[in-house]
Amino acid sequence: MEQQLLLATKYPSSQKTRLLNVLLASSLLFNVVLLLLLLLGKQYELPTDGGAIDSLQDVAAGWSRKAAAEAESAAKYHCSGHGYVFVDTSVSLNSDEEGTPACECNDCYTGTDCSQIVPNCVANAESGDPVFLEPFWIANAEAAATVVPAWYRMSYRIMDALDINLSPELEKQIRAIHSLAGNVVTEGRYIVLGTGSMQLLNAVVNSLSPIHAQNPNPAGVVSATPFYGAYKEQTEMFESLDFTWKGDASAWIKRAESLNSTTFIEFVTSPNNPDAVTREAVLNGRNVKTVYDYAYYWPHFTAITRPADDDVMLFTLSKLTGHAGSRLGWAIVKDYHVYRKMYQYVLLNTLGVSHDTQLRATRLLKAALSAYEKRGRMRTGRLEDEKQLLFHYGYGVMRRRWQRLERIFSGSDRYSLQSLRPAYCKFFKMVTGPSPAYAWVKCEREEDRDCAAVLKSGGIIGRGGESFGADKRYVRLSLLKRDDNFARLESRLQALLSHNFSGAS
Amino acid sequence: MEQQLLLATKYPSSQKTRLLNVLLASSLLFNVVLLLLLLLGKQYELPTDGGAIDSLQDVAAGWSRKAAAEAESAAKYHCSGHGYVFVDTSVSLNSDEEGTPACECNDCYTGTDCSQIVPNCVANAESGDPVFLEPFWIANAEAAATVVPAWYRMSYRIMDALDINLSPELEKQIRAIHSLAGNVVTEGRYIVLGTGSMQLLNAVVNSLSPIHAQNPNPAGVVSATPFYGAYKEQTEMFESLDFTWKGDASAWIKRAESLNSTTFIEFVTSPNNPDAVTREAVLNGRNVKTVYDYAYYWPHFTAITRPADDDVMLFTLSKLTGHAGSRLGWAIVKDYHVYRKMYQYVLLNTLGVSHDTQLRATRLLKAALSAYEKRGRMRTGRLEDEKQLLFHYGYGVMRRRWQRLERIFSGSDRYSLQSLRPAYCKFFKMVTGPSPAYAWVKCEREEDRDCAAVLKSGGIIGRGGESFGADKRYVRLSLLKRDDNFARLESRLQALLSHNFSGAS
Repeated sequence: MEQQLLLATKYPSSQKTRLLNVLLASSLLFNVVLLLLLLLGKQYELPTDGGAIDSLQDVAAGWSRKAAAEAESAAKYHCSGHGYVFVDTSVSLNSDEEGTPACECNDCYTGTDCSQIVPNCVANAESGDPVFLEPFWIANAEAAATVVPAWYRMSYRIMDALDINLSPELEKQIRAIHSLAGNVVTEGRYIVLGTGSMQLLNAVVNSLSPIHAQNPNPAGVVSATPFYGAYKEQTEMFESLDFTWKGDASAWIKRAESLNSTTFIEFVTSPNNPDAVTREAVLNGRNVKTVYDYAYYWPHFTAITRPADDDVMLFTLSKLTGHAGSRLGWAIVKDYHVYRKMYQYVLLNTLGVSHDTQLRATRLLKAALSAYEKRGRMRTGRLEDEKQLLFHYGYGVMRRRWQRLERIFSGSDRYSLQSLRPAYCKFFKMVTGPSPAYAWVKCEREEDRDCAAVLKSGGIIGRGGESFGADKRYVRLSLLKRDDNFARLESRLQALLSHNFSGAS
Repeated sequence: MEQQLLLATKYPSSQKTRLLNVLLASSLLFNVVLLLLLLLGKQYELPTDGGAIDSLQDVAAGWSRKAAAEAESAAKYHCSGHGYVFVDTSVSLNSDEEGTPACECNDCYTGTDCSQIVPNCVANAESGDPVFLEPFWIANAEAAATVVPAWYRMSYRIMDALDINLSPELEKQIRAIHSLAGNVVTEGRYIVLGTGSMQLLNAVVNSLSPIHAQNPNPAGVVSATPFYGAYKEQTEMFESLDFTWKGDASAWIKRAESLNSTTFIEFVTSPNNPDAVTREAVLNGRNVKTVYDYAYYWPHFTAITRPADDDVMLFTLSKLTGHAGSRLGWAIVKDYHVYRKMYQYVLLNTLGVSHDTQLRATRLLKAALSAYEKRGRMRTGRLEDEKQLLFHYGYGVMRRRWQRLERIFSGSDRYSLQSLRPAYCKFFKMVTGPSPAYAWVKCEREEDRDCAAVLKSGGIIGRGGESFGADKRYVRLSLLKRDDNFARLESRLQALLSHNFSGAS
């Protein structure tokens, strides 16, 4: 009231209204500002430090039980021996109303329990999928299961005290399995891990090639025909200034040596993919660097004749334990600088190799090794325990398959298999017959120029010779797949060879 | 006898001896041949087919128990809260006589139980190791444990019926976590997995660059300073004909557009590594392809202001769940052809991404998602359960650390922190204060030209500005490491800022 009177006496009426308007506007503006400050100021309430979780001491025992129960209950679904349910099998549209997951069926099987055969399913022997070892790992389910704690090795480093990304325990198992197989010298050698040996192909090419600024001639990457196609495809994909694909190594004999300033990097796969032949380098000379891909140099696939001891040797878990999906490979390297360069490559390419995979590989190799150790302690010379013996089991499957294949092809003058001979295997301590990973089939008749097409007409999918830098008259058939896949391949081949299907039919 | 007589009458004496010698030699040779044939013929005895293992039906229940017990008993070792024992912890020289494994100690701790502090240990804040989330996963040990059966997804393919290497269940969880966070549009977008987003950097550069044969001008790969150093290092390592590192994107503004025939690929990291600033592309134009690296665009590290919807967006498990060691990243891609090229790159580089890692990532994301789902069902608006809520927990830790850091730097005119502002976060539905992954420290004094050296003199290891294409006056300090590491960093910084160490001291 007093203020109103004051205003009334001090100001005339029109001025008074204007002033009130200004005051009101200011006040409203102030309201808005305060409100905004209040709202914006209401920041996220931080949990107090009391909420922090300290250490493993607080973790209740039995933390793995739920995950184990889930994994086991998934494994219990009946998939007719032709499929699987895992904990990460999607409860998909295929599933029934109660949310029972549908089985993930193997090739050529279908239905929620994989009990139905897909009619006229082809025998797909295209890929080198090493699933022939699945039954081995099912039989060794207990010894080779892996439990990964939620907090397991989260860091980029495998452990704080190490500056390389290779688990010491995995390294130990890798050296031990080589020592058991007797296939390679590892003492005093460096080991580089890769995301499959696939990653290591380019790691080694990159590491052995001159740097462009120092030498404008790119290294020539070569391999003798028939060669594993990835050497070419990967090298070409990178379109590097430092190296280039130069095809069949044999074409460079003598020529390579004369090219003084050009480095040659020769991939030697032994036993070879696709034809399983034992190989030596084709090129020699001071510009030539040889990389041995020993993916298949294990007792499953070939006689171990000597411990290999080359400068750079590549290996992969895929062909040793069959775990292709885990993506683990390693190089055994003599020279420290080559080792460091390859290690740096893997670091800049993928920041190392999955710790989860390293753990699982450790478990798998340990299971394989301890079975042989036990056998040694039991001093039994017989092989009745082969279900636990990786190399015995693997050799057994591959050898039987090859024998059956040889029988099928023996009468044919139209199709032939590569010729492989028995040899003394230092691992088995006896002469072993051939047990190759692949059949390298040749169509002998003049008119069968495209052998893959001929086989396809008989319901067989192979990988054509041209993928290996070879003639289309050849086809690679994988012998590494599941029993039912091999049986299908067998019966299709039998039909093809007896009925003399022609490529055009 | 008759024969002898016959020989005697028919041949003279000397001839007789010679003949006998020949016969004896032949007979001996024949014996050797027979013996060899006998020996070589003794081939490896194949296990009969009866020895084959058929299917999961034969696997005894409880196959996971041994592995679970081993994992749990390893986790029970007392490592003083500063280290771990896992099943693959080596029983090393450090271990005691009973073969008790020595703990793997975190940085700055030592002793078999990690109870001793390493004297004068530096505060190493160099790497972006996201181990601040370890306690979260320890607290969620049960929900996030992973059990991998021995026969789990051994094939190159994630399942037979799929021709891409991305587990459908993992894809589902990835889309779900994005949908929960609201940070990106995934509907109708393709997802490419990588061995960490590291692998995807070059996958995208390779896929967006012209092929040399079609365009001799290599694409220029750029990023605005300060940028994540791996863009440069990785691009340079590949020495490709198709692309080349062109440095600071800002230097190409206007110039890029004028270079008609040159493609530019700009990496935009938002929030940025190292300085946590929200970023947009610097270059525009029809030759410019922008790649968004959203590694840190999660509620832990920044306010989620909108769902990003760019052409190519990169993410990594490392900065989402903290599992850097698992090597899993993904790209969300609009264009089908870019997606296919990136997919092919990963295939030829590493034949896909570890299935073991895909399983573990599925479990981790599922655990994180189901905690939020439960919270929703409980309709509680409060955050007392933040130990189970990944984003809340992550934000809580990072926010507290930043607040403490701001307090330390607030009085200093010699060192400064980057300036970051609160913003409204659509995920938390409130204004959140800054919670960056890194501090981007500047040495303000004229004489402190090498800021990393100055900090080093105070026992702090950071990553110098030059690694980010920036001035050496800047240093990145990681705030992502363990609590004890951050505490060490805090106290070293406090000492440095109060005592005014000089770079020369």
